[in-house]
Amino acid sequence: MEKVTALCKRRGFIFQSSEIYGGLSGFYDYGPYGVALKRNIRELWWRHLVELRDDVVGLESTLIMHPEVWKASGHVDNFVDPLVQCLGECKRRWRADQLQGGRCPNCGGELSEPRLFNLMFATHVGPVADSASEVYLRPETAQGMFVDFKNVLNSTRVRIPFGIAQQGRAFRNEITPGNFVFRLREFELMEMEYFVKPGDDDRWFEYWRAERMRWYQEVLGVRADRLRFFDHPKESLSHYSKQTTDIEYDFPFGWGELEGVADRTDFDLRTHQERSGEDLSYLDPETNERYLPWVIEPAVGADRIAVMLLLDAYDEDEVKGETRVVLRFHRNVAPVQVAVMPLSKKEELIGPAREIVTALRPHFRVEYDQTGGNIGRRYRRQDEVGTPYCVTVDFESLQDRAVTIRERDSMEQVRVPIADLAQRLQERFQL
Amino acid sequence: MEKVTALCKRRGFIFQSSEIYGGLSGFYDYGPYGVALKRNIRELWWRHLVELRDDVVGLESTLIMHPEVWKASGHVDNFVDPLVQCLGECKRRWRADQLQGGRCPNCGGELSEPRLFNLMFATHVGPVADSASEVYLRPETAQGMFVDFKNVLNSTRVRIPFGIAQQGRAFRNEITPGNFVFRLREFELMEMEYFVKPGDDDRWFEYWRAERMRWYQEVLGVRADRLRFFDHPKESLSHYSKQTTDIEYDFPFGWGELEGVADRTDFDLRTHQERSGEDLSYLDPETNERYLPWVIEPAVGADRIAVMLLLDAYDEDEVKGETRVVLRFHRNVAPVQVAVMPLSKKEELIGPAREIVTALRPHFRVEYDQTGGNIGRRYRRQDEVGTPYCVTVDFESLQDRAVTIRERDSMEQVRVPIADLAQRLQERFQL
Repeated sequence: MEKVTALCKRRGFIFQSSEIYGGLSGFYDYGPYGVALKRNIRELWWRHLVELRDDVVGLESTLIMHPEVWKASGHVDNFVDPLVQCLGECKRRWRADQLQGGRCPNCGGELSEPRLFNLMFATHVGPVADSASEVYLRPETAQGMFVDFKNVLNSTRVRIPFGIAQQGRAFRNEITPGNFVFRLREFELMEMEYFVKPGDDDRWFEYWRAERMRWYQEVLGVRADRLRFFDHPKESLSHYSKQTTDIEYDFPFGWGELEGVADRTDFDLRTHQERSGEDLSYLDPETNERYLPWVIEPAVGADRIAVMLLLDAYDEDEVKGETRVVLRFHRNVAPVQVAVMPLSKKEELIGPAREIVTALRPHFRVEYDQTGGNIGRRYRRQDEVGTPYCVTVDFESLQDRAVTIRERDSMEQVRVPIADLAQRLQERFQL
Repeated sequence: MEKVTALCKRRGFIFQSSEIYGGLSGFYDYGPYGVALKRNIRELWWRHLVELRDDVVGLESTLIMHPEVWKASGHVDNFVDPLVQCLGECKRRWRADQLQGGRCPNCGGELSEPRLFNLMFATHVGPVADSASEVYLRPETAQGMFVDFKNVLNSTRVRIPFGIAQQGRAFRNEITPGNFVFRLREFELMEMEYFVKPGDDDRWFEYWRAERMRWYQEVLGVRADRLRFFDHPKESLSHYSKQTTDIEYDFPFGWGELEGVADRTDFDLRTHQERSGEDLSYLDPETNERYLPWVIEPAVGADRIAVMLLLDAYDEDEVKGETRVVLRFHRNVAPVQVAVMPLSKKEELIGPAREIVTALRPHFRVEYDQTGGNIGRRYRRQDEVGTPYCVTVDFESLQDRAVTIRERDSMEQVRVPIADLAQRLQERFQL
């Protein structure tokens, strides 16, 4: 884990937020390569859950919603952690349910009585800070889909079963954030609410468990032996859930939740219907039945996928007696897919190299690198950011109109005519 | 404007946030077609400002940053509006600088003395709500680029001049939000900080003004006669700016700011350097000079672009004596690029129609529509969401293996062999 966090900082994947001011616990920024990785994750999720399907539509609701939303959803009452404070020297705060032994794990001091602490961040809308104007930053994106359910029904042609999907920031004022970007106070969720006929939920629950596991392995290229299902025991289910399965990854700190697939029943639509007084039922046009749909929800944090991909891809091997650090990213998620580099900074090489960049950019995520340093060092740098292919323009290229493709994993180099380059690379990406 | 907001609700572009609970002033949600439109805006901005360039890299910083950031940037002291309250009947609150006549515009009541009101939303990080833990939701994304400047320098190979770009939510607790999604309390910014050598700023300021105007006209297809530059007079510049030009659009409520291009000097890096004690200077590797770069910033809200595109595209014409509502979106921004529809719900048509959807999806944003209603009504619905092309599969298609392409603007229909369909459409999209 330390190696990956160091690499993340060194190569511009992930930095601590506000680092020049001493940072802020539980907040991280994504640098140039990190943004590219995160955008790929978002894009692949959106493509497979929304764009390639006819039964799922998108939504973007606001991060700040009406406070009644969180009363209805149960978050005002139930979204709490038990907090204790060290009464000894260090005065640190801890989650009581994560402690063993009843003493402060830091200084051994006595602990206060636990008090319930709501994890939502509160703020005020409008120019007066009274309780009437208090609102919360959303701790999940799901409620947007429930609250807008009727508007989506009325403005589109969706028919049950169908889903509403959303990506966006969410906030939880965690008492103990940690494990790099695994448990953050500000993070990015990707959630889909799949509305089904009551009684059809078991079937769709199975479908979405399998489909999501497939996505990790086939689309993101994650190693199958580091993924597993974990079925929540009945007694530890959330207040809205009939059944929940986590997809877990074998993190360096142990198996940890990556994605949750939950059967939320009709809990959310029912409570919003009761509290708002709006009819949220669905009229089945085939059978003329009217009912509140049940909901299957696959929900995952983009940050958890990012850290998993970094861990899953991290590798070291030995090249000519030296250790090589390499991120073996799947071609779909690699921040840079092709790096193009002229062998030297001579104008005669820069011209053709730039032409190649222009020709490849419609097809791939391309980085152009003409900074100094010998070609071997530049290859190593691309290995560290996980670039599958490097294309090098050398002096011979001016004669034979050919360039070298260097492959990240095998380090093999092949000579390819410039005229065939885009197609040769495309073949490799379609493997 | 009313026609566009009604269309937005009817067709699932934009809804009021938390509408079933009475809504929340200044907050709007994007429905299925609105999300697609907004994603296109984001993607085209990112593609042209980051991916197609070698001199700009991406960043995603957190929405909640260290509070010192906003003290250094001047937002704690300067990001204020003068607030007055009606002392008469209605007790409404107003921005004093927008009032004329000194009486309440609603009920004519007397007004209170103005007091300064900070537009940042405040909240608390950690389990104790004291002033030490008070943080703000960012009112702009730009500070992320300044605060992370050193980390980007150290982890990438950027050389001046270069830019750092970011998209993401921002929040301003506006006293008077309004004009639909033009002035929101929660909105989405797209900002790029372009770092240049001191003295080079005038040249780059001119470059980015022109480049950004070109983007609206050529990439988004906005009508040139509805766009103009507005140079801010010296006396009304922000505290950090040497010169600012707005790109304005001719909205129904008058010319309004779409994008601002500002010459921020070295104000931000300098104040963050002073306050944090970290050296934020740049060492020029060619000349060995060390200096604080100056910054040119093109900054725009994605919501303003969305409402502009909707207004710019909205049109009505007459078809067979009936009024047709049509969004004449440019092909780049249309939420749906191609709609595929079987003439009837017969299985023999659904099969081939679905095959066509599968064949087109790698190339276009495709919607499949087999819901009832005659084909004319389905065309009209696609006109209202701005789909450039409809492809219809009819019973003749089963014999001649050809389909009809119907064009939104001219309503012309042409018969095309299924085998050539993708290519024929691609030609139209590359016009």
